[in-house]
Amino acid sequence: MVRIPPALGFASLVALAATATPLRADEGMWTFDNFPTAKVRAAYGWAPDKAWLDRVQAASVRLTGGCSASFVSGQGLILTNQHCVASCLADLSTADNDVLEKGFIGDRREAERKCPGQQAEVVTSIVDVTGEVKAAFAGLSGEGLTKARDARIAELEKAGCTDTATTRCQVVTLFGGGQYKLYTYRKYSDVRMVWAPEARASTFGGDPDNFNFPRYAMDAGFLRAYENGKPVATPRHLKWDPRAPKEGEIAFVVGNPGSTSRLWTDSQIAFEREVALPITVATTSELRGRLIRAMDESPEKTREGIDTLNGIENSLKVYIGRTRALNDPAFTKTLADAQADLKARSAGNAAIGDPWSDVARAVDFNRTIYLARRFTQPSGDLYGYAASLVLAAIEREKPNGERLPGYTDSSLPLLEKRILDERPIYPWLDELLMGWSLSKSREYLGVDDPDSQLLLGKESPEALAERLVGGTRLADPAVRKQLWEGGLAAIRASRDPMIQYALKLEPRQRALKQAFDARYAAPLALAGARLADARFAAYGDSLYPDATFTLRISYGKVQGWEERGRQVPFQTTLGGTFERATGAEPFDLPSAFAANEARIDKTVTYDFVTTNDIIGGNSGSPVIDRNGAVIGAAFDGNIHSLGGNYGYDGTLNRTVAVSTAAVQEALETIYPAPALVKELGAK
Amino acid sequence: MVRIPPALGFASLVALAATATPLRADEGMWTFDNFPTAKVRAAYGWAPDKAWLDRVQAASVRLTGGCSASFVSGQGLILTNQHCVASCLADLSTADNDVLEKGFIGDRREAERKCPGQQAEVVTSIVDVTGEVKAAFAGLSGEGLTKARDARIAELEKAGCTDTATTRCQVVTLFGGGQYKLYTYRKYSDVRMVWAPEARASTFGGDPDNFNFPRYAMDAGFLRAYENGKPVATPRHLKWDPRAPKEGEIAFVVGNPGSTSRLWTDSQIAFEREVALPITVATTSELRGRLIRAMDESPEKTREGIDTLNGIENSLKVYIGRTRALNDPAFTKTLADAQADLKARSAGNAAIGDPWSDVARAVDFNRTIYLARRFTQPSGDLYGYAASLVLAAIEREKPNGERLPGYTDSSLPLLEKRILDERPIYPWLDELLMGWSLSKSREYLGVDDPDSQLLLGKESPEALAERLVGGTRLADPAVRKQLWEGGLAAIRASRDPMIQYALKLEPRQRALKQAFDARYAAPLALAGARLADARFAAYGDSLYPDATFTLRISYGKVQGWEERGRQVPFQTTLGGTFERATGAEPFDLPSAFAANEARIDKTVTYDFVTTNDIIGGNSGSPVIDRNGAVIGAAFDGNIHSLGGNYGYDGTLNRTVAVSTAAVQEALETIYPAPALVKELGAK
Repeated sequence: MVRIPPALGFASLVALAATATPLRADEGMWTFDNFPTAKVRAAYGWAPDKAWLDRVQAASVRLTGGCSASFVSGQGLILTNQHCVASCLADLSTADNDVLEKGFIGDRREAERKCPGQQAEVVTSIVDVTGEVKAAFAGLSGEGLTKARDARIAELEKAGCTDTATTRCQVVTLFGGGQYKLYTYRKYSDVRMVWAPEARASTFGGDPDNFNFPRYAMDAGFLRAYENGKPVATPRHLKWDPRAPKEGEIAFVVGNPGSTSRLWTDSQIAFEREVALPITVATTSELRGRLIRAMDESPEKTREGIDTLNGIENSLKVYIGRTRALNDPAFTKTLADAQADLKARSAGNAAIGDPWSDVARAVDFNRTIYLARRFTQPSGDLYGYAASLVLAAIEREKPNGERLPGYTDSSLPLLEKRILDERPIYPWLDELLMGWSLSKSREYLGVDDPDSQLLLGKESPEALAERLVGGTRLADPAVRKQLWEGGLAAIRASRDPMIQYALKLEPRQRALKQAFDARYAAPLALAGARLADARFAAYGDSLYPDATFTLRISYGKVQGWEERGRQVPFQTTLGGTFERATGAEPFDLPSAFAANEARIDKTVTYDFVTTNDIIGGNSGSPVIDRNGAVIGAAFDGNIHSLGGNYGYDGTLNRTVAVSTAAVQEALETIYPAPALVKELGAK
Repeated sequence: MVRIPPALGFASLVALAATATPLRADEGMWTFDNFPTAKVRAAYGWAPDKAWLDRVQAASVRLTGGCSASFVSGQGLILTNQHCVASCLADLSTADNDVLEKGFIGDRREAERKCPGQQAEVVTSIVDVTGEVKAAFAGLSGEGLTKARDARIAELEKAGCTDTATTRCQVVTLFGGGQYKLYTYRKYSDVRMVWAPEARASTFGGDPDNFNFPRYAMDAGFLRAYENGKPVATPRHLKWDPRAPKEGEIAFVVGNPGSTSRLWTDSQIAFEREVALPITVATTSELRGRLIRAMDESPEKTREGIDTLNGIENSLKVYIGRTRALNDPAFTKTLADAQADLKARSAGNAAIGDPWSDVARAVDFNRTIYLARRFTQPSGDLYGYAASLVLAAIEREKPNGERLPGYTDSSLPLLEKRILDERPIYPWLDELLMGWSLSKSREYLGVDDPDSQLLLGKESPEALAERLVGGTRLADPAVRKQLWEGGLAAIRASRDPMIQYALKLEPRQRALKQAFDARYAAPLALAGARLADARFAAYGDSLYPDATFTLRISYGKVQGWEERGRQVPFQTTLGGTFERATGAEPFDLPSAFAANEARIDKTVTYDFVTTNDIIGGNSGSPVIDRNGAVIGAAFDGNIHSLGGNYGYDGTLNRTVAVSTAAVQEALETIYPAPALVKELGAK
């Protein structure tokens, strides 16, 4: 799955960088205001024009849970992946009605149900604010720089979106500080579940088949955007074309790739390989083991834990794939060569100087505080609520321009929604997550470390997690609402043990963030701008920035690849599912496939691969043909795409999508939804 | 703990190598026939003479479970670590009488109880057979080489030990093929539990404190060697001296370090860092998580799983420490420099040629079969019994010289003992181990890999493990005995599902081993001999070979170290335990400490550190003073010692030992054993 890995206490690095040169064929996650028209026309004999791009942009949706999507009808109908709505399905499931396992077939407006915490967003404008942001911190450095920059950004975002009920403004840092752009979104904060197949149809092959191809997964789902209790009108939607893709045809994937690190400097790559990834893989693997075993304890735990486990296993596969890429000398040589080329071309340019050494110094500093930053952030939803409530209460006491990013006026509406929306909390799962993370904190920080002692006092990780999870009332949204509205006075007066714990940790977390901002983020912002300038000077301005979970378009073609001398076909058919099924999980035939075998057209194209350049966050992205019609929903990359975080290789990297033809067959025959079929209007 | 990590399906690499130059102060795991007398005398103004060395050698014990020990009385009394007898304690424990948790205070001969599978061995002679072994494979290569070499070794071992009831012969490969030596052991196959403190006294601080110092662990235990139902007479034992160590005094650690990789070539190190360690850490971490959670399910599972978990966590800490060492550019530079120096000194020596390239080619081949070899060996005791029974039945049909190593006449007695000794099997634990290992096989080999399909057929890893563990009768020693004695006919006729499964896998495992022998082990044997010659030519013959779980002596001194500007003291006291205790596991005070607090002399030295160079396998080694008296039992290294697998740094690497003074206090006051006190005869 190419959704953004859920946060597991992994303090992500600040991304530097623009794009390497020379670009490989089909490489790039392009912004809509810098589409490489000439390059595409040269490669494919045709390229989309501005009208085509505008239409597609208007139909493209960002889901704040970390996925992409698109409008596919005039009544706010949204196509995405089943795995992008799995958390919602889990939230809507009960022991008596497990709609994650069985599927959710709305097919009547009244049956459509609200997804907690979910919000859909459509970009309506992009404005370059580079000059204004850079001017705000001209001549500054260290903490002064990040404070001035963040204040300016908060101000621009607030001024840009006066109607916070329907719009959202975000200033996005591109090219690691080379550009700042103000994105304005039309937002829809009432998003409802419409249709999803049974989980096994989407996850057929489970973790073993994840990031692999050939693949047999119905990883599609539909949501609908509502406003004032009614579906929103979305006249600018993509045309639904339930046809089979043709080998070699041009295809576009439009969505919100989460983050890439394609032009990290050597010191950043080294830190990732030597320090961050080994810790991430080891600790996440242990969590995976704890959860797998815990879910075996009862059918309830299996149901309640499956969405979290899927997320963990998906992230782990990503991290292991990245580890493999950075331990492949041939792969890392291409990264080193790209850096050497840029350095050589920049030699003697005094305005550029030596940003590589500046980055290396910042990374050296980060090495000294990395463990402390990473391991003073316990895991678990309840702790997460507490930490957000505490920080929001403290920050809201300040003027907008002095607050931490994420707590400014432009950010508060979505944060509030996330905190207050009702959703089920499973105490055993929260306790497992928190106990695990605290035990890893002690392991990596050491028993005698002051941060360990701050986290644990004289308690064991497990006993502390049990006490806090057992004692807190934050699972109740009314309690959260009261604390949210009560502000700092209510927080300080609260006797909730989780709130008290979050209050106890907050000053240390803040101090670490300040140190990180001053001695890592600030120097990187300066060095990043110079590295971006170096790239523009060396390679011209037809470059794409690293991914930032903002709207991008990638071009490519429907095509298989060669794997150890063997040709991997570009598509599978629905019938292949029956051949691959073994009867044993996760290769057990989805029950509706078994029940409807005689009626299913087995020749229909199921999943297919394209050369498009995508990454986590692109899950749910429409695959769009030359006519601007949607012919698939991207849901995965192949195993080679995991190195795509650092670099793209068009001979091997592939996007994996489920075809609209297969979804149409599902809507008609397997998980019938006649009203949806009619709404999509293809037949 | 510096015991040898238990096998977790981790196919270990064949070790090359001799020692680097220049030797650091106190570096080396020396063989008794090549003790660096001059070097020690130069450093310490005194060195042991041959009589001293002979006395110590005669008292030194190897425990076949993967530890070291020493005779400390004339009646076969053996000092080792509690963690070296923990498996025995677990085997002797029941729900009603958990002697692992409570401790085992024999103190009467009649109460001493046999440890399943345990054997004690004392080296009685070492004969150089290099010429004979090398002559056997002169001019050969590939599979022919390893077959001829192994046949010659089988022959030498069989001829050397005609009395297999009391002796054992082993040809040991030293310097990666530079030397072959025939070790003869007096063996004692009836070893009984005498005394061990409660588990918390030995494991105080648990995994968090493991490989750390200051430390407060009573990691000592006593066994006794029996023969014909009576304690054996051991007149050549170490004198027991329950005194505090003095800072700076010379100390010797004598034991059986398991393996080191100090002069692997660059390609071997790269393979370890890039491929083997990442897989080991990820898969072992997941196992740890599964087991931690499973043990939470009931007090029985906690008791039944604790010894396995301790072993897993210890191994994992070792692997993580090695990962850290190999990801430390300063550390790996010293390794690269050593190789560069040897290459430079060997330049132009035609007899040496370019063994580095030969090793690199062998490693390249290993990369192609590593996953298949590693992941076609399922985990679990019951599968282990089945695999050994199957292989033994097949191999015993052949003449001695044609059998696989481990199944020759000289190896069969210990193998038979291990298979037939009665010990408890916990089906849930075996199922967990097997299910985990099969799921990792599928993950790393891939669903569609032929080896995956051989392992799983159409079953899921969990269902297969459940079926095999549920259906096998191999937990019954009588069933194992019948199959052992029935030979290949009985094996082939068996309808036991685990035996049938092992039979199904055996041909593939054998084919992989043949490929590995022919294209990895054989070239390495040749290259290793030339690398050893290169080292002897460059640095003279005062070198120590890589560790091979054979008897070694290391010299050093009682000394703390400096950690990030802070001085770590060389010792702790019993009283420190009370200060460190928090009441929360694993820092809960051992119950006998709490009960006897008023009577315990808190000033007694508890644990201490020395500069001795040790590694896994040295657990239980006596720490011996200049007078030849034992003053401690080594049980751990500090965190820096984990890189010791690849190189020793005397400024940081430390051995951690429990003092005889503390053990004496335990025997007198905390876990009283008056008869033992009398037998040790110090007071």
